Amino acid sequence: MSGVPAKGGGFEGENLSPIDHAPSHILTLRVELQNRPGTFARLATEIAHLGGNLGAVEIISVDGRRIVRDLEVFAGNEEHGNRIVDAVRKLEDIHLINVSDQIFHMHLGGKIRVQSKFAITDRTILSQVYTPGVARVARAIAKDPQKVQTLTIKRNTVAIVTDGTAVLGMGNFGAYAAIPVMEGKAMLFKEFADIDAFPICLDTTDPEKIIETCRIIAPVFGGINLEDIAAPRCFEVEERLRRELDIPVFHDDQHGTAIVVLAAALNALKIVRKKMYAAKILIAGAGAAGTAVVRMLRSAGARDILCCDRRGVLGPHRLPDLDFHKSWLARHTNPSKIRGSLEDAARGADLFIGLSGPGTFPLRALKRMAKDPIVFALANPVPEILPEEAEPYARVIATGRSDYPNQINNVLAFPGVFRGALDVHAREITDAMNFAAARAIAGCVSAEELSEECIVPSLFNKQVALRVAQAVGAAARDGGVARKIRS
Amino acid sequence: MSGVPAKGGGFEGENLSPIDHAPSHILTLRVELQNRPGTFARLATEIAHLGGNLGAVEIISVDGRRIVRDLEVFAGNEEHGNRIVDAVRKLEDIHLINVSDQIFHMHLGGKIRVQSKFAITDRTILSQVYTPGVARVARAIAKDPQKVQTLTIKRNTVAIVTDGTAVLGMGNFGAYAAIPVMEGKAMLFKEFADIDAFPICLDTTDPEKIIETCRIIAPVFGGINLEDIAAPRCFEVEERLRRELDIPVFHDDQHGTAIVVLAAALNALKIVRKKMYAAKILIAGAGAAGTAVVRMLRSAGARDILCCDRRGVLGPHRLPDLDFHKSWLARHTNPSKIRGSLEDAARGADLFIGLSGPGTFPLRALKRMAKDPIVFALANPVPEILPEEAEPYARVIATGRSDYPNQINNVLAFPGVFRGALDVHAREITDAMNFAAARAIAGCVSAEELSEECIVPSLFNKQVALRVAQAVGAAARDGGVARKIRS
Repeated sequence: MSGVPAKGGGFEGENLSPIDHAPSHILTLRVELQNRPGTFARLATEIAHLGGNLGAVEIISVDGRRIVRDLEVFAGNEEHGNRIVDAVRKLEDIHLINVSDQIFHMHLGGKIRVQSKFAITDRTILSQVYTPGVARVARAIAKDPQKVQTLTIKRNTVAIVTDGTAVLGMGNFGAYAAIPVMEGKAMLFKEFADIDAFPICLDTTDPEKIIETCRIIAPVFGGINLEDIAAPRCFEVEERLRRELDIPVFHDDQHGTAIVVLAAALNALKIVRKKMYAAKILIAGAGAAGTAVVRMLRSAGARDILCCDRRGVLGPHRLPDLDFHKSWLARHTNPSKIRGSLEDAARGADLFIGLSGPGTFPLRALKRMAKDPIVFALANPVPEILPEEAEPYARVIATGRSDYPNQINNVLAFPGVFRGALDVHAREITDAMNFAAARAIAGCVSAEELSEECIVPSLFNKQVALRVAQAVGAAARDGGVARKIRS
Repeated sequence: MSGVPAKGGGFEGENLSPIDHAPSHILTLRVELQNRPGTFARLATEIAHLGGNLGAVEIISVDGRRIVRDLEVFAGNEEHGNRIVDAVRKLEDIHLINVSDQIFHMHLGGKIRVQSKFAITDRTILSQVYTPGVARVARAIAKDPQKVQTLTIKRNTVAIVTDGTAVLGMGNFGAYAAIPVMEGKAMLFKEFADIDAFPICLDTTDPEKIIETCRIIAPVFGGINLEDIAAPRCFEVEERLRRELDIPVFHDDQHGTAIVVLAAALNALKIVRKKMYAAKILIAGAGAAGTAVVRMLRSAGARDILCCDRRGVLGPHRLPDLDFHKSWLARHTNPSKIRGSLEDAARGADLFIGLSGPGTFPLRALKRMAKDPIVFALANPVPEILPEEAEPYARVIATGRSDYPNQINNVLAFPGVFRGALDVHAREITDAMNFAAARAIAGCVSAEELSEECIVPSLFNKQVALRVAQAVGAAARDGGVARKIRS
């Protein structure tokens, strides 16, 4: 999260403070105060003065003259939090006993657990869930492997697989650092789709070994969600696993993003009354997400797509220098064969999709876009262009952040996609299923709700995953990849 | 489970019926009866007549003349259950609507789930457990990998790894058939030691690939429990993983069994006032469990051990025909260099440990044992010799079954062993830790409790795992393999 001041006039009509809607830095200060009028007020004033928001305040102990309290303090970021703590430390009559960082506190011991569906309270239950009773179940599956689908956790279990090379897109942090992220992802699977997901963080970055490991551990899983694997190896890993396994394999950084971007694009284009096939679409970023978005938009009918990497627009002129991946992009985008920078490419664009880094889309580029420009500035935490800067010129603005309207977040896609795929026992997740998911997400915004500040549903709209799951399941059946025909 | 009638005078002083204490076959019969006096009694009588025990009886619906009930029926085994069902089907005025098998019913959809420690109810929590807040935790771990131990699930998470080649010792049933067994194991980890264990069922039987896969998926796990991997490959897999990984690796079929056998042997020898170093110990079975038991007894001071496979006693005379494994046994047992069959070897034995198959230890062999013979007939479900047959001759009898006294069950060992190892963040599980676990289990039977029918504590004695964990943790610290020195 950046220290950027939030845009006024919020998503949910709340009165936004200078602090992000979803503060990532929450501290608990334990302080000992003189127990007399005014001391606490002085502390609260100091915190407010520095821009900190006070949350819950609890009394821990009182001994007459002294009182110990826990104060929850919302800060904009780590540095902001440190400033507040330093200031509190200097106050007279106030002794700062301890500071704990709520996020780290919540991560102690991890965020998920494995739970039994029955408690083993007596010998009868033990003999049913384990030996000797379980032997009959094992024999039944050995005799008819199809039964694994009904008699085990497989049908509701997803592996969240990463090699830690692109942790939250921040870089190659390794398998350990990826664990808290994958645990968080598992929580989202549970919360939004009641799927049991388990983190598999690999101590290898070799695509062959990633593929082999996924293949070998596949039996217990009903699906594999690839996550935070750097491009270009993520493409090979996903393509090979899709071919080799009989369970859905989904690289969320590619397809999850592409689904939500398409959903948002469908709705934004409605607002400006433009058609996908006629729209000029400019994409910044030619990595995993950019590639998947290009594929998805093409299958949705887009014809005039321009894709830029750091060095400018991809096109035939760049082919000699490009890897397998980018050369696919160069050959399948840029029909007018233009050359130049992102700024050059912005001329006349109807929709800009940023999947790159902070500040890469300058205002002068936005000013070159066509009438009623749509800007998706999805770099996180700092977008390609700040919404407050873009607002005077752009008709529709979306970001990846929760503190602006129109948050483009994969949480809208992957829970429902996997729910739908698992429900029909799909062999794979096809482009048609992804496309169905995008349309379902777009459809969760009703005609009455649809507006410049509402092109995607809220993350907390529980209908989204249900509707996505239904659409994905139906598409799987239509496409012949569903093994369970009736529900 | 066999249909063998249970021994009278039970473990917990209960009045045993002809059905196993822990029936593995429980049926729910849905029947429609004439709603008039005597009809239900006739049904109950018929079931009792065939040896079935009636459990819960529920009324599902009544329409005046007809009544629909669900009857829980405990049968000795599958065949017995079928006989009862057939008989009920033939009764007049009684219509059998449906039969459901409780064990299969309990397995629908599997037996474990992944649970979040916090519900994601709003944006603040979302931003703390996932992006953007989790980025700070990921960075902290990337900077200091030691933090994986406090900020992720690693410290309480164990992989239960199998290749499905020896599912419950029944054979190579494959990865799918192993899943319900590993789920059951995960439930035991949870119930007895509050450990989060997850089934990893491998689609390979190649030792190199098993090792490589475990190595690659290790980052998220604090320990690996190898399970139901056939000998001899289980030895290589375990030895290599113990060397290559910095987390505990424990092959339960070897060490779990060895720990509980040693605990039982220590207590049984006390009863007959014999010393380990002087005892002649005969083992039937030279597989994974037999080998581990030999090693464990040797490290506990036993000197006169005889180990038999199907072809008879192992010893120098067998060396030319033996694989690497059995030749180790042949060289480290049988100090008197005797030859012959299991029966020959039984002469003068103080303790027989059966880790083989049903009925392999005939009464005439038992009769050749020394005074006050101790018989551990651990083959499951049908032991090497039936306790009722052995009882007139043996002083102490133990089996692997829950329906006789002295149940030797790994559940007494592995939860506490892993709890202890995880608590001190042990690098590995050493022989000293296993030995400490065995002594702790033996010590859970007090001097007052210790008797021929009580040489091991009850599986449901929750003190066992706690005491084992303490002993294992202390042994890890003493042995220098604990990374966490203070608790």
